[in-house]
Order: sequence, then structure tokens, then C-alpha cells
Amino acid sequence: MTYYLGIDAGGTHTRARISDSEGRTLGAGEGGPANSRIGLALAIEAIEDASSAAVLSAGLGRGDVGRIRAGIGISGLNRKGVLKGLREHPFPYDSLAIASDAAIACLGAHLGQDGGIVIVGTGSVGFARVGDETVVVGGYGFPISDEGSGADLGLRAIRRSLWARDGRIAHTPMTQEIIDGFSGLAGEIVAWMDKANATDYAKFAPLVMDHANRGDPVAEPIVQEAALRIDRLIRVLLDRGAPTCCLMGGLAPRLHDWLAAGVRERLRAPMGDALQGAIQLAQLRGLPPGRAE
Amino acid sequence: MTYYLGIDAGGTHTRARISDSEGRTLGAGEGGPANSRIGLALAIEAIEDASSAAVLSAGLGRGDVGRIRAGIGISGLNRKGVLKGLREHPFPYDSLAIASDAAIACLGAHLGQDGGIVIVGTGSVGFARVGDETVVVGGYGFPISDEGSGADLGLRAIRRSLWARDGRIAHTPMTQEIIDGFSGLAGEIVAWMDKANATDYAKFAPLVMDHANRGDPVAEPIVQEAALRIDRLIRVLLDRGAPTCCLMGGLAPRLHDWLAAGVRERLRAPMGDALQGAIQLAQLRGLPPGRAE
Repeated sequence: MTYYLGIDAGGTHTRARISDSEGRTLGAGEGGPANSRIGLALAIEAIEDASSAAVLSAGLGRGDVGRIRAGIGISGLNRKGVLKGLREHPFPYDSLAIASDAAIACLGAHLGQDGGIVIVGTGSVGFARVGDETVVVGGYGFPISDEGSGADLGLRAIRRSLWARDGRIAHTPMTQEIIDGFSGLAGEIVAWMDKANATDYAKFAPLVMDHANRGDPVAEPIVQEAALRIDRLIRVLLDRGAPTCCLMGGLAPRLHDWLAAGVRERLRAPMGDALQGAIQLAQLRGLPPGRAE
Repeated sequence: MTYYLGIDAGGTHTRARISDSEGRTLGAGEGGPANSRIGLALAIEAIEDASSAAVLSAGLGRGDVGRIRAGIGISGLNRKGVLKGLREHPFPYDSLAIASDAAIACLGAHLGQDGGIVIVGTGSVGFARVGDETVVVGGYGFPISDEGSGADLGLRAIRRSLWARDGRIAHTPMTQEIIDGFSGLAGEIVAWMDKANATDYAKFAPLVMDHANRGDPVAEPIVQEAALRIDRLIRVLLDRGAPTCCLMGGLAPRLHDWLAAGVRERLRAPMGDALQGAIQLAQLRGLPPGRAE
């Protein structure tokens, strides 16, 4: 009996799922955050926690672990040393395949068939599998990339709120709410910024979306521009040969209605989730550990 | 005899100048960086180094220090605790007045008369004195503010270079040069970004300006947009009553030609520098230390 372990190692938490060779789910587990930015050792710990929990919940014993083929999708895989560090770690599985978080989301969304995905949450990225090729667009991180993401929405909204505070533009309900949130004090905004990361900026995204939906004259063009950026990511994937595309991530349901009509028409609902994709990855590339990719 | 000590405490270095009551320069000195972001203790050290050097070079003795009226202009004054910390420090002068770096630059540029300045270097800020009022526009720091600054130019250029690398837009000489500078590797760009601050982004500004001047189709609109933002800062100051405005800072000479014709007409060359402004500050507000502002 061969078992398949799929792991989705993300910035906020890590999830694992085990299935048998007929695709039946046997167990699942969770672990802490595994973003490569917080350090590879912690990421590996989160992966092992989630995997052990999944193995336990599947009722597998110590002797079964050697018959597991694992697939890991991890965010920030293009960070220096991450792939090497994961490959060198002595995971106990029969085989291990490693890919980006976007790659497993894409495999899951299209059940291994050709297709593209655009993930829009705290960050944004486009990814497609077309034949033997993979296409990656964006997703390099905030602030140099991740256009149209929650962090991007938040940054733009804060910028414009300061413009309104300065009298460069007129205040709107959104800019007023944001400035009031900092008690109107520039010093508080600066102190917040000094420690803010992408996740902190993205916390403003729901507020921006709410105001945009009510026609706030500052929020509306911010969301329209974000939608244009996401449109562009989708169109690049379609132009590069992806037959369809799925919009995924925390902001997807809210941004969907703002996309161009022609783009919305080409979108499909994902067929499976990222964990299903990680399991597909394990099946696709069941190489011995030494040759893991 | 009363002496006037002007101090310009900036992010890269601190300068001090001493003059007598007739405005003759007696001495000058330099110290390290004094940006409040790196810590108040270091800032105070840099201020004391520059001041001591100026006192020494003016040939003043220990007994003269108590007859010095000092004016300090410091960047990042709106950061929490900075003003309080400076006020509480036992500087040995007869009086001490504290203002932002923009305030002393404005005092110097207009020799204490009403007027505005826009500083555009690593960051950007607009500042004006109009009667008893001061007007501040922007300058809250990167990335939430400082539109049109060197850091802003650099960030936009890197963003668009990644778009070109992804195939979202066509490569231009500028995007190619930037991507080549990172050996074409996304991992290198991400690793750079993880440690990059505003100064690092601003290092790309000369490259962006060079390409814009040659008509690079990505660089040109980036610089045009920066110029629009700087135009806006200037216009806000004029609208708020500043009779004239000076464009200052490292990027000023290069951005000047890109500004709107109507804005360029309203610009004047500064009459004095920031140190002259700091000395003006000392003269304007020669209050005893306990009442220093």
C-alpha cells in the first residue's frame, strides 16, 4: 500500500492531508506558519507537526511512514536557500516533491490538467501549467510586487488618507475612517508604518472594499486599479496558453465582481484545493528523496 | 556677546555652524547621522559632535557655551518621543529651539520671510511658513508617503522591471538594466527587498532619471508621475498662501525640468541654506531652555 501526503505550508498555517492510492482521505493535520521569511527551521517544524498529526489521524503506524509519498507546497520558495534546505532535511518519506504554494494550488484547481490560477489575498500571484511549462507572474512580495493584493489596497488607501489629511485631496468617508483610526495623529501613523508588514497593510483591505462598494470616491478607484492589475495577471496566463483560470485567495470573492466582464467569463471555479494539489504533486513526481524536486 | 549655533541633524550626517550677532560665520562642524529612526541617543551624540566641532573651530572657550543660542532642525521630528527626548537632554546652551529639518530649510530659503519649500531627495516633503502658520504636506516616510521622491522612483522602476521580466509589459533599456543588475534572478531581487530601506530604493533614482531623459518608455512615465506629485506639493503650498516656493534636495535639479511650466515659473532659488535657517530659528525663538520649543 502506498500513501500520499499533501502539505500546504503557508504563511499563516500549515495543513497536511493523507490519502490512499484511490484518492480516499485517511487523515489530516495542522501546524504553525511556515513562510520561508520567518526561517527555514520553523517552517520545517510546522511541516513536521502538520504531517505527524495527519499520520496519527490516519491511524498509520511508524512502519507505514516509509511508504508515504509526500508533496509539499510552500510559500516563498524562490527565497535563497529554501529549496536546498528542504531537500537536505531528512524527511522520513519514500519520496518527496517540493513546489511553490501557487504550484500546488494550480494542480488542485485543475486536478493536474493545464490551467492557470491567480491568488489574491495578502499578496497576489499568477501561476499556470501549460503542457510541460510553468508560467509565474508576480508574487515577488510587497512592496515591489503583489499588485492588486490586500497589502497593495491597504497601502494605497493609507497613502491617500494622508493626502486628504494634508489637504491635497478632499476627505471621503474612507480617508476619514482611516485617519480617525490613528487618532488623526501623523506620529501614530509613522510609528505604525515603522513596524508594519504586508499582513498589517492587508488588514485595511476589507475596509477599502466596503467603502468602494458604497461608491467612496477614493476607495472606488483604488479597487478599480487593483482589479485592473488582477485582470492583467489573468490575461497574461490566458495569453500564455492556459485554457482557463481560477481566481483564489481571501480577497477573490470580493474582487471578482470588479474584474472586466471579458475576464470574468474566462474564470472557472477550482475543482480541488491546494492540499489536493499537493497530493497530485506527490503522485506526479514520486522520485526517491535524493532526486526530489 | 551672544553667539548663534545652527544645527542641521539629518539622516546621513549632521552639520553645525556658529555665527555672531551680526551674522558672520565663526566656525562649523560635522557629525554622524541623526535621523530619529536610528535612535535618539545616537542622534544626540551626532548633534553634540557637530556642535563641539563648530565651537572649537570658532575658537570659543568653555565659558562662551552658556552664551550660545542654539537652533536644531532634525528629520523625523514627528516620531513619538523625539521632541520630548531632545527637550529633556541637558544641552549647555543659553537657549534651544527645535524644529523639523523642513522648517529650518524653509527659514533659510526665505531668510525668515513667508514662503514654501519642497524637498525632494530620498524622501519628499512640502513645508511653508505663512504668517504665524506652518503648512506641512507629505514627508511621512516611505512607503506610505514621500511621493515623487527618489525612493518612490526606485520602487516604481523595480516594480515595472518585474512586470517586464514576467512578460506583463515589454522590456525597455531601463527594465533590462535593472533586471540584469540582479543577474536576472527573482530570488536575488526578493532577498534584496527583504533588507531594503528607502535609501536603497532611492539608489535607483539616477538610473531612472537617465533613462527617462533618453525617452525610455517605462522610465519616462515614472518620472512624469513623480513630477506631477511634486507639482501637487508645490501647488498646495502656493494655494495655502506661500508667496513663492523653492525646490530643494538631491533630486531637485534633475526633476525641475519635468515640472509643469506654470509651476516652474513660481519657483525661486533659495536665499540661504538649512544651517542659516537653523541660526534664524535660534534668533527667532531665543527662549530659556525650560521653555524651548
